[in-house]
Amino acid sequence: MEQWKPIDGGINAAMGFTSAGVEARLHYRGRPDIGLALCSTRASAAAVFTQNRCASPTIACDKERLAQTGGYARAVVVNAGNANAATGERGFADAKAMCDRAAEKLGIDPAETLVASTGVIGQFLPMDKTLNGINAAVDAVKQGGNELFSSAILTTDLVEKTSAVETIIDGKRTRIGGCAKGSGMIAPNMATMLAFISTDAAAAPEFLGQALRRAAAKTFNRMSVDGDCSTNDLALVMASGMSAQIESHTDAADAFEAGLERVCRDLAIQIARDGEGATALIEVTVNGARTEEEAETAARAVAESSLVKTAVYGKDANWGRILCALGYSGAQFDPKNVSLRLGDIELVKEGQPLHYSEEKASASLSEDPVRISADLGAGGGHAVFWTCDLTHGYIDINASYRS
Amino acid sequence: MEQWKPIDGGINAAMGFTSAGVEARLHYRGRPDIGLALCSTRASAAAVFTQNRCASPTIACDKERLAQTGGYARAVVVNAGNANAATGERGFADAKAMCDRAAEKLGIDPAETLVASTGVIGQFLPMDKTLNGINAAVDAVKQGGNELFSSAILTTDLVEKTSAVETIIDGKRTRIGGCAKGSGMIAPNMATMLAFISTDAAAAPEFLGQALRRAAAKTFNRMSVDGDCSTNDLALVMASGMSAQIESHTDAADAFEAGLERVCRDLAIQIARDGEGATALIEVTVNGARTEEEAETAARAVAESSLVKTAVYGKDANWGRILCALGYSGAQFDPKNVSLRLGDIELVKEGQPLHYSEEKASASLSEDPVRISADLGAGGGHAVFWTCDLTHGYIDINASYRS
Repeated sequence: MEQWKPIDGGINAAMGFTSAGVEARLHYRGRPDIGLALCSTRASAAAVFTQNRCASPTIACDKERLAQTGGYARAVVVNAGNANAATGERGFADAKAMCDRAAEKLGIDPAETLVASTGVIGQFLPMDKTLNGINAAVDAVKQGGNELFSSAILTTDLVEKTSAVETIIDGKRTRIGGCAKGSGMIAPNMATMLAFISTDAAAAPEFLGQALRRAAAKTFNRMSVDGDCSTNDLALVMASGMSAQIESHTDAADAFEAGLERVCRDLAIQIARDGEGATALIEVTVNGARTEEEAETAARAVAESSLVKTAVYGKDANWGRILCALGYSGAQFDPKNVSLRLGDIELVKEGQPLHYSEEKASASLSEDPVRISADLGAGGGHAVFWTCDLTHGYIDINASYRS
Repeated sequence: MEQWKPIDGGINAAMGFTSAGVEARLHYRGRPDIGLALCSTRASAAAVFTQNRCASPTIACDKERLAQTGGYARAVVVNAGNANAATGERGFADAKAMCDRAAEKLGIDPAETLVASTGVIGQFLPMDKTLNGINAAVDAVKQGGNELFSSAILTTDLVEKTSAVETIIDGKRTRIGGCAKGSGMIAPNMATMLAFISTDAAAAPEFLGQALRRAAAKTFNRMSVDGDCSTNDLALVMASGMSAQIESHTDAADAFEAGLERVCRDLAIQIARDGEGATALIEVTVNGARTEEEAETAARAVAESSLVKTAVYGKDANWGRILCALGYSGAQFDPKNVSLRLGDIELVKEGQPLHYSEEKASASLSEDPVRISADLGAGGGHAVFWTCDLTHGYIDINASYRS
């Protein structure tokens, strides 16, 4: 098979998908805040949802609809600026009303219309503005769409996050694309991460769900800005079925999963890089753990350590903090076998601190990404985790009053 | 039984204990950095140690000696400025040499001499200065001691942390006192927490160990500055046996444990209040969890949330962040039953957001301590957890270069 090649187009790259963003002034001014993505076919659909017990009613709404259809969808409507979370039954009714309005205006089955929200927790949606915005978004999509969907889903993000790739599977040009938002949770709680992925491959909902869960486990779930799992996290994939047929346990399935993981990783890294207040993207690699799970556990502990993240911000090659985080992570290893690197600089080799140039080590903290690597010397487990540094900017953003 | 009453004296309050601090210039200048505490009797002794896999050799040294003696000790020597961590076999030999020198100069059994270190990770102790400092500390103790032990164990702490209480048990005046250090881990890694507790009660090592583990579980283990469990954490209790006899499963045991927990809580709260860069002490109370364990889990998630901690710093009554942290904590509850308070202000009652005065809620974020309370409505589990806010000061301290 050919390699997947990057292409333009984001969520619109795959055949069958149109999207748009419009300004509804739910919370922001002068920027789109309602997005709508539509598939011209009845798309296979699968999603992974936040594990947060106080999940937004939008999550329950989508779970219910995907269960009702057996994993098919035509459209997803998204708003930014209000998370519709901690809003109880009224919030659930509002989420359904958003789907229903989009479905009615599009002339599609309401059960095949999904919803996502991100923004303020604990406030009801201004439904007049919201439904008017959905009307406008449907009109925009009917007129061929625009490039504003990936912008309409943002909250405190500084940049849009999009990715798309294509390859030939079984002789058919096949595309996977998407966009995401997320940069932390900001006053008063912009819910962290949304990702929308589209493909023109033809795949059953069950396979699509398995592939998305596997890809998310190695990408979205190995990325952290501040460790807070939000009330609204959602990754959704829709497959229009207009190109290659993907059956489980085939070469085509392997190829498809590689492409899906690539798009998810690309989006996850963009989210980490745009973390609130971030000045550096950090890539933590752990090799030599007993298992992949323990490698992930160890990498996560390093990536989520406030001390490691502030050391990167301060350009201080302070490897004691890395060792300390590995030590409390819960991964099993013997400190005598641990090796540490920062970029290409060896700091510790098999438990022995090495002499190294502080200047070079500090310089490696200005690389993009900053690469922290540990080998635990305990087995073959490997994992990579992405995060960003912890800075004055993060405090500025998150200590500022909501208004 | 009478209540425990606060008294002066810290670690020297209990009969039989003398201590001193001297300046050895291991890392700091113009302040004591080697401390020695001595018991005039062969004290029962018990300790709780860091769970960090990369623990300092001082931890292994103390475990070995307590196992050798069956839980007895005469003295503990402590240095600040160098953690003697990630120092391998040479570090272990250095730790033993510290004990041996103190024992030799004091004329006591080396097996009954313990050691603790806090400071830079990954550097060898300057042993000449260290052993000279121990000589001086022994001389000071022999001359009756001084008040500098609680100061000699500090690193980035801004204030000394001491506590002592007394009561009458079985007609005998009995005292428990101690001191602690800890305020975060600072470049390059001042190990987080040390606590030294002395009592003139008479208690078997086994009981003392059980009592310390129970007290630490509700105090030191329910306190966090930045969530990083250091390589050197240690809480040690020594009992001189000069006052009331404490047998397990008696009223005297209950009384003793109440006093021990009080001293541990007092020290834990002082540590949280003096967290690196802190401007506010935060007390998180969770009631109504299914179990005490789940209450602790939920309280810890709120207390360790960077978003909650920055909201307190910003005096923003941003309760969505609290709800979100409860939701991802892992504790089991129905969001419909959750109530939240900030100080005396009700924010959410049984899942329903309430109208409240933003002004009053914000004012409650200037109280000392800032009190965040949640009732999960799921059972009778209760826990209190202490932390501090996350501020520009934390970033300043931890992003600064080591030198």
